[in-house]
Amino acid sequence: MNTETKGEATKQHLINVGSMLFYQQGYNNTGLSQILKEAKVTKGSFYFHFNDKESFGLAIIDYYIKIFKDLSAQHLNNNQLTPTQKIDAFHHFYLELVKQHDFKCGCPIGNFSQELSALHPEFSIKIKSAFDSMVFTLSKVISEGVLVGEFNATNDIEALASFIIDSWEGALLRMKSVKSAEPLDNWYLFTKKLLITNT
Amino acid sequence: MNTETKGEATKQHLINVGSMLFYQQGYNNTGLSQILKEAKVTKGSFYFHFNDKESFGLAIIDYYIKIFKDLSAQHLNNNQLTPTQKIDAFHHFYLELVKQHDFKCGCPIGNFSQELSALHPEFSIKIKSAFDSMVFTLSKVISEGVLVGEFNATNDIEALASFIIDSWEGALLRMKSVKSAEPLDNWYLFTKKLLITNT
Repeated sequence: MNTETKGEATKQHLINVGSMLFYQQGYNNTGLSQILKEAKVTKGSFYFHFNDKESFGLAIIDYYIKIFKDLSAQHLNNNQLTPTQKIDAFHHFYLELVKQHDFKCGCPIGNFSQELSALHPEFSIKIKSAFDSMVFTLSKVISEGVLVGEFNATNDIEALASFIIDSWEGALLRMKSVKSAEPLDNWYLFTKKLLITNT
Repeated sequence: MNTETKGEATKQHLINVGSMLFYQQGYNNTGLSQILKEAKVTKGSFYFHFNDKESFGLAIIDYYIKIFKDLSAQHLNNNQLTPTQKIDAFHHFYLELVKQHDFKCGCPIGNFSQELSALHPEFSIKIKSAFDSMVFTLSKVISEGVLVGEFNATNDIEALASFIIDSWEGALLRMKSVKSAEPLDNWYLFTKKLLITNT
């Protein structure tokens, strides 16, 4: 492995470790020292790749966006599925994921929005683009569903997609205190009703 | 003022200052030293009233629940209003509030759920009861709306109220990165549609 490749591998390793710690504990609650200790990386090496914890956090949001896009191939962007099946697959995929984490972790983008949007303008811009990306992906599914007659027509598909994403984020938020699948299952029930109702 | 009354006043003053700092900056991002400095209260006095930062945080959630209940008299629990007017008043009340805070602060209960439910079981129990209280208040309004014919019948009023509260929390979450009233206005639009649709 040459120096450049090794450097990139270290950078990605730091992002992998940091993204999981931020997801589980929150950004403000996770110190740089814990990240370095868990990653077994020196402070010097960290500062070679990132100016500070903030720029590290911004790189991690990019990583979360990439993961969401990659995982979408299994549900919302899975062209093997009908629009209804895409929604079903999305729900079941994240239900399994949050169960694995004992309903503790929610959505990494939602977590960052809650903790950091108000404090750091750079974070809010990047988090907004992550939400936009989720809304765009869901809007495509709704449009397709309307086209093939599975969902009913709506005046404003993007507004409906935004509402559905917001309600999903809120369900994940409440799930963290309820510690069960109930908020997500309730979200699924009303989302399906919204999609088949002429709104 | 006697000693007991003065002590209670100091305790309430600490809760007032802490609740605002936690609301604006987050719990993990706010140190005890900043709270003491802003409240102009000594460490000894703080520990006379609270065992630690956690018990202080729990007292603050109780305070948020009390504020929500008190403020509800102006909207969801305002018996001078029809059910539709109650929903309208709720929306406009919080829209004004978040505008005053430049769309930075969201819902204090939602913020705590995001940051603390996964980390502290005592917090999650108290936060869950806060959500239950909000759902209960909204359920009463929906029931009343169905009774007087303003809203359409629904199979499960509590489930609908939970979904509406979740979507409100999610809208507030996205608002923090979007920094505009759009997510809350979008919530209002779809909530009204849900209430008048037979779900």
